[in-house]
Amino acid sequence: MTAAFTSLDSFRAALAAAGGADTAARDGAAARNGALTKPPGALGRLEDLAIWVAGWQGNARPVIAAPQIIVFAGNHGICAQGVSAFPPEVTAQMVGNFSAGGAAINQLARTYGATMSVVPLELETPTHDFTTGPAMSEAEVVSALRAGWDAVARDTDLLVVGEMGIGNTTVAAALGAALMGGDPADWVGRGSGVDDAGVARKAQVVAAGLARHADVLADPLQVLRCLGGRELAGMAGAIARARVAGIPVVLDGFICTAAALVLDRAVSGALDHAVAGHVSAEAAHGRMLDALGKTPLLDLGLRLGEGSGAAVAIGIVQAAVACHSGMATFEEAAVAGKSA
Amino acid sequence: MTAAFTSLDSFRAALAAAGGADTAARDGAAARNGALTKPPGALGRLEDLAIWVAGWQGNARPVIAAPQIIVFAGNHGICAQGVSAFPPEVTAQMVGNFSAGGAAINQLARTYGATMSVVPLELETPTHDFTTGPAMSEAEVVSALRAGWDAVARDTDLLVVGEMGIGNTTVAAALGAALMGGDPADWVGRGSGVDDAGVARKAQVVAAGLARHADVLADPLQVLRCLGGRELAGMAGAIARARVAGIPVVLDGFICTAAALVLDRAVSGALDHAVAGHVSAEAAHGRMLDALGKTPLLDLGLRLGEGSGAAVAIGIVQAAVACHSGMATFEEAAVAGKSA
Repeated sequence: MTAAFTSLDSFRAALAAAGGADTAARDGAAARNGALTKPPGALGRLEDLAIWVAGWQGNARPVIAAPQIIVFAGNHGICAQGVSAFPPEVTAQMVGNFSAGGAAINQLARTYGATMSVVPLELETPTHDFTTGPAMSEAEVVSALRAGWDAVARDTDLLVVGEMGIGNTTVAAALGAALMGGDPADWVGRGSGVDDAGVARKAQVVAAGLARHADVLADPLQVLRCLGGRELAGMAGAIARARVAGIPVVLDGFICTAAALVLDRAVSGALDHAVAGHVSAEAAHGRMLDALGKTPLLDLGLRLGEGSGAAVAIGIVQAAVACHSGMATFEEAAVAGKSA
Repeated sequence: MTAAFTSLDSFRAALAAAGGADTAARDGAAARNGALTKPPGALGRLEDLAIWVAGWQGNARPVIAAPQIIVFAGNHGICAQGVSAFPPEVTAQMVGNFSAGGAAINQLARTYGATMSVVPLELETPTHDFTTGPAMSEAEVVSALRAGWDAVARDTDLLVVGEMGIGNTTVAAALGAALMGGDPADWVGRGSGVDDAGVARKAQVVAAGLARHADVLADPLQVLRCLGGRELAGMAGAIARARVAGIPVVLDGFICTAAALVLDRAVSGALDHAVAGHVSAEAAHGRMLDALGKTPLLDLGLRLGEGSGAAVAIGIVQAAVACHSGMATFEEAAVAGKSA
């Protein structure tokens, strides 16, 4: 699955060339759904989810046998400006925690039978402070996109991408403001727990970044390069790979969704294969999901990142597919249907 | 676990004698939660759930190794009045489907590793039509309560109860109206799919039931006897048993919550061991949860019953407990904490 692109232009072209869902499989799944032993529509969104998975898997009776969680990690030059409640060395320490199996995402992966891997992206070389220059060179952002693309396993049938990167709620806020507009102050929040002064600093940093890169704001992939981060590019690369390979994706919170938004703004329909796993406690996330037209499956006040909210939603997608593919039909079970 | 009661009075006494959660275990879990490798509060409701399970399991590091789903089935005399979109023989047919493993709840139980059993309660003898007399005698309702109590396995560490009973959204509506007041028309809905005329018939049946049993409306257990059904009493018995045994419960939808509401109105604090798994598409369910002060974990538009919504929420409780009990602490993982 080595990435077939070497530049932002060829990345965009690879994404734009992706096909759509398999409509025959989707229609077959919808027909099967109507014959299952339940009143029509009684499983609500689980029915829609199963039919959606069927379309992307190209199988009217889909399975989720190999869900994959990939956590990308990166560091950020803007951390020097005091935008996080935690010191930047925590990124590498948490990568160690992921590798040792001690983080939340490890427990969630085990709960739902998903594989979990962590991809640290040049942690010793933080991105450039985006208030004084582009966060990454084209070579750097393409390298991170390729790392994400290549990290998706061949047999994956449901993908979750998550992240770890001290300072990256400020990066996600910058992407949101750049791609959707609005006041920088409305895009920042407490992240991992900054105080009011920290929130104000985050807004100033975002505003300075937007001013510094005003000339590229109309180009989503340049926005990713100039204001983004390696772990966001890694997530974007993996989500794009899943789009091309027809693998359904569950989006995580604010930072993951910011990375996904880049793809959506770069190529129309780029997120047709993605559902929103949850809505984060970070307020700007809900606004981003609204803009993408995605209704979150969960609203549990999570704001951890790591892919944690999306991982919990794996259990819901598994439930949907299990019901769809495992239930008996009225005919098979000899159950009488709805009265005429 | 044979039930220690033989009348509604002794059932109420057994429930009222139940102890509370283990506060030492709960406090220990809260302390552990604060030391785990995540920003404080970043797992949102998952943190609250884990601490709540800890209190009821009496274990600061709780486990969910043996979740149990029990589906109670019963038939209803009011079905003769055309309150359901399905014929009453479907109750027994669906019991066959549960036993054969073909229903939605079977797939959900398998997805989350829960045991699943079905308890049919005298399906060949529907309850009496409550518009013309009490649905059950005291012996009948006590028998159903005991069946529920006895169905809870000794090693269960998380309980879900569900139901199957053609006509039972009308029964649940009658309980809601009897215990909470309000216009019968506001308590009825489409159930498994009746048309406008069916909804109107349901409201008339509920109103007639309330009028017929006006003298018992102040006594919740008599309300269960006169307006309820065997599967609702079975669920109430199982939820009560879990309260006495200190087993956390996930409530399902409208019908399960109506049965639980009986307990709450009979004995204050009877549902302290219960969370709301989801809010049903049946509109009156949300009002019932509000009255109980329970915020649902899921809102996916389900309206199937069988315990299906609560079963999906098992996955969330498992996630909460897995994170709580499996994550490393900052000290164990050598991760730096929040900056001073």
